[in-house]
Amino acid sequence: MGTTYAALDERLSDLDVDGYLLDADGEDSNQYYLSGYHAPDRFITLYSQRGVVLLMSGLEYTRAKTDSSADEVRKLSEFEYAANVEAFGPTEGRIRSLVDFLAAYDIDSVAVPETFPTGVADGLREFDISVVADAEDTVDTIRAVKSAEEIEHIRTAQKANEAAVRTVEALLTDATIDGEFLYYEGEKLTSEFARTAVEKTLIDHGCSLDDSIIACGPDSARAHERGSGPLRAHTNITVDIFPKHNATGYNADMTRTFVKGEPSEQVTEWYELTYDAYRAALDTVRAGITGEDVHDAVCDVYEAAGYPTLRTDESTEDGFFHSTGHGVGLDVHEAPRIGLGGEELKAGHVITIEPGLYEQGVGGVRIEDLVVVTEDGYENLTEYHTDLVID
Amino acid sequence: MGTTYAALDERLSDLDVDGYLLDADGEDSNQYYLSGYHAPDRFITLYSQRGVVLLMSGLEYTRAKTDSSADEVRKLSEFEYAANVEAFGPTEGRIRSLVDFLAAYDIDSVAVPETFPTGVADGLREFDISVVADAEDTVDTIRAVKSAEEIEHIRTAQKANEAAVRTVEALLTDATIDGEFLYYEGEKLTSEFARTAVEKTLIDHGCSLDDSIIACGPDSARAHERGSGPLRAHTNITVDIFPKHNATGYNADMTRTFVKGEPSEQVTEWYELTYDAYRAALDTVRAGITGEDVHDAVCDVYEAAGYPTLRTDESTEDGFFHSTGHGVGLDVHEAPRIGLGGEELKAGHVITIEPGLYEQGVGGVRIEDLVVVTEDGYENLTEYHTDLVID
Repeated sequence: MGTTYAALDERLSDLDVDGYLLDADGEDSNQYYLSGYHAPDRFITLYSQRGVVLLMSGLEYTRAKTDSSADEVRKLSEFEYAANVEAFGPTEGRIRSLVDFLAAYDIDSVAVPETFPTGVADGLREFDISVVADAEDTVDTIRAVKSAEEIEHIRTAQKANEAAVRTVEALLTDATIDGEFLYYEGEKLTSEFARTAVEKTLIDHGCSLDDSIIACGPDSARAHERGSGPLRAHTNITVDIFPKHNATGYNADMTRTFVKGEPSEQVTEWYELTYDAYRAALDTVRAGITGEDVHDAVCDVYEAAGYPTLRTDESTEDGFFHSTGHGVGLDVHEAPRIGLGGEELKAGHVITIEPGLYEQGVGGVRIEDLVVVTEDGYENLTEYHTDLVID
Repeated sequence: MGTTYAALDERLSDLDVDGYLLDADGEDSNQYYLSGYHAPDRFITLYSQRGVVLLMSGLEYTRAKTDSSADEVRKLSEFEYAANVEAFGPTEGRIRSLVDFLAAYDIDSVAVPETFPTGVADGLREFDISVVADAEDTVDTIRAVKSAEEIEHIRTAQKANEAAVRTVEALLTDATIDGEFLYYEGEKLTSEFARTAVEKTLIDHGCSLDDSIIACGPDSARAHERGSGPLRAHTNITVDIFPKHNATGYNADMTRTFVKGEPSEQVTEWYELTYDAYRAALDTVRAGITGEDVHDAVCDVYEAAGYPTLRTDESTEDGFFHSTGHGVGLDVHEAPRIGLGGEELKAGHVITIEPGLYEQGVGGVRIEDLVVVTEDGYENLTEYHTDLVID
C-alpha cells in the first residue's frame, strides 16, 4: 500500500478516472509536493490506488530512487524509450513510452492539473487514454492547508525575511539626507544597492530571491516593479520581499513602507488608512469566513474614505487596485485567493494580508504580514514593527 | 504593422490557424521572449497578423503598457472579467473573457506550445476555438538561434560564472589538507560553505543561482545532486554553476572538476579521457552537423576505452550516462539537444559541451564549456583553464 491522499481519491472517484497524472519539472510545486523530488527537466508522477510512482529519465533515476518521496521509481528505458524516440521522434516517442507505462499500471483514464501540457494530453488521447483537466485543481487545494512542519518551514523563511527588511531599515537609518536624495557612506543610496544587501542577507539565512521590490515614489505604484535608481528622502520607499528557503522550498512574504525624513500629508493619510485596513482585515480572519470577506473588510475602509477599489471600479489603476492577499507555501502565490471570489478559509491556510493605496505617477504605501489561519482567528508569522518614519 | 516572426508565420500557415497563443507566467521563456514582460502570475500573449498583443490583469496592466515589448496591451476588465468570474467562477470566467478577446481579433483557431495548459485548451475548444499543440515548438526553435545582443548577454553571464568558479578554486588553493578532509580558516571546508561563496560572488556580478553543484566523490556521480558536507582531499570535486543574469534573464553554464591533493589513477584516467572527449566534441562543432554527431564524437572516445555510454546501454548508470550538452539562453536547458536525436546545428546556437565519466558510489569527472556555433566551427564563451589538480 502506497501513499494516499483522501481528497485526491475522492476527486478521482468523482471524475471516474483511474489516476492523477503530472508532467512537469520539480520547480512545479504540485510536482514537488507529490513526488518530493527536484529535477531541472520534466518528469512524470502518477498517483493511483498503487500510490505515487515516478517515471524518470536515466539521468535522474539514480538520485530519484533515494531522494524522492515516491513509493516507486521507474525509468523511461524500461518502456523502450530509445527505440520509440528513434522511430517516432522525441515528442511522440516519449508519449508512446508514457502510454506503455500507464498500461503497466492498468490506467486507462487520468485527471491532470489545469496546467498539464496540452501536447501530452492530446498525445495520450490519440492512444485512447482519457484525459480530463481537474478544474478544481485538487492538489493546489490539498497543498493550501499546511501541516505543522510546513508552517515551521514558512516561519523560518519569514525570519530570514525580517532580517532582510531590517537590513534595508538599517541602511535608511544610517543614511543622511542631502536635498532630495539619501546618501550612505558617501554615495547616493539606490534601490540596486539595497537589493544587493537584501540578497546577501537572505543567503546568510539559507534563502534566495533575485527580484525583491525596493521601490521609491512613483515606482511603488506600478505593481511588481522592482524599483531602480536613487532612493529619495521625504517620500515612500516600499520594501516587499518574498524569499524562498533553499533547503525546504517554502516561501515567505512581507512588505513594509518607510519614509526617511518628513512624509507628505498625503502619504501619511494613505498610511494611516492602510494601517486601519490592515487591522480590519486581520480582525476578520478565521476559519469559516471567505477570502472575499477579508477583502471586503479592506475595501470597506478604503471606500469609506473615498478611494476607489476593484469592487467599485474593476479597471482602476489608482486607490486599492489589487487583491488583499494570497496563499503562500511552495509557491509565493498559491491558494487561497484573498480577493474577489476568494474561497472559504480553513485552519492551516497561510495567507498574506497586504492592503495598499497608490496614485500612478506619485507613489503608494503597502503593509503586508503573513499569517496562519486558525479556527478562531490567526497566528501572525511576522514580527516586525509597522512604523512609517525612519529617523 | 506589428512585430513579425517569419518562422512563426510559416508554422501558422502550415497548421492553418489564425494565431499563436501563450498562457504562462513571465518565468516561462517563450512567454518572456514574445512579450518582453516578466510577471509572477500567468497572462496571455497572442501572436497573429496584427503583431503581439497581451491580455493582462488590471494589476499588471499599467506596467505592461510601458515595460513589455508587445505591440498592444489589453486588460481582462475590457472583456467583462469581473462579471464572468461572478457568474461562472474564476476558471470558466477567465476562459470566457479570453474567448471574447480572441473574437475581437477575429481568431477562430490557434497553435499553442506543447506546454500550454490543458485546462485552457479544452476550455477554448468548448467555445469552438480550434487549439492545436505545436509539436515542433516553433518558439523554442526561434529562440535557439541567438542574436549578437543575446550572445553578449550570455557572455556576460559566463564571465560572472568564471568569477564564481574562481572563488571555489581560490578556496581550494587556500585550503589545507588534514587526513581526508580540507580545512579553510580552521574549519572543515564544506559544499555548503563553498556554495554560499559562489552565490555571493554571483550577486556581486548581477547574477543569481540557488542550486549550484559542488559535489565531492560519490555525490558527483548522482546527476544534479548539489553536494553536501565536507569536501575531501585526493578525490574529485565537481563544480557545475549555471547562473542567470538578473537584468537580462540569460543564463550561462560551465563545469570544472578539481582535486586538492593527489588524484587516484582512476580519476586521472577518467579526466584524461574526458579531456580527449571534450576536445573531440569541440573539433566536431560547426553549423550543418547535428547535435547527435557531436554526441557521437564523445561516445566514440569513451567506448574505445571500454566505458559504457547511452549508445551502448540506454539504462547505464555508470560511464557516460548523460547527453553531451544542450542549448542555453533564457532557459538553462533549451534547444538544441546535443545527444541522441539531436537536431542540426545552426550558426547562433549557444550550446554546452560537457562530457563526463562516473561510477556510482565512487565519483566522477566532467568538463563543460559554453560555445557559440558558427558557420565553420565555434566561438568558446568560456575562458577558464582545464587543470584537474589544485596545489
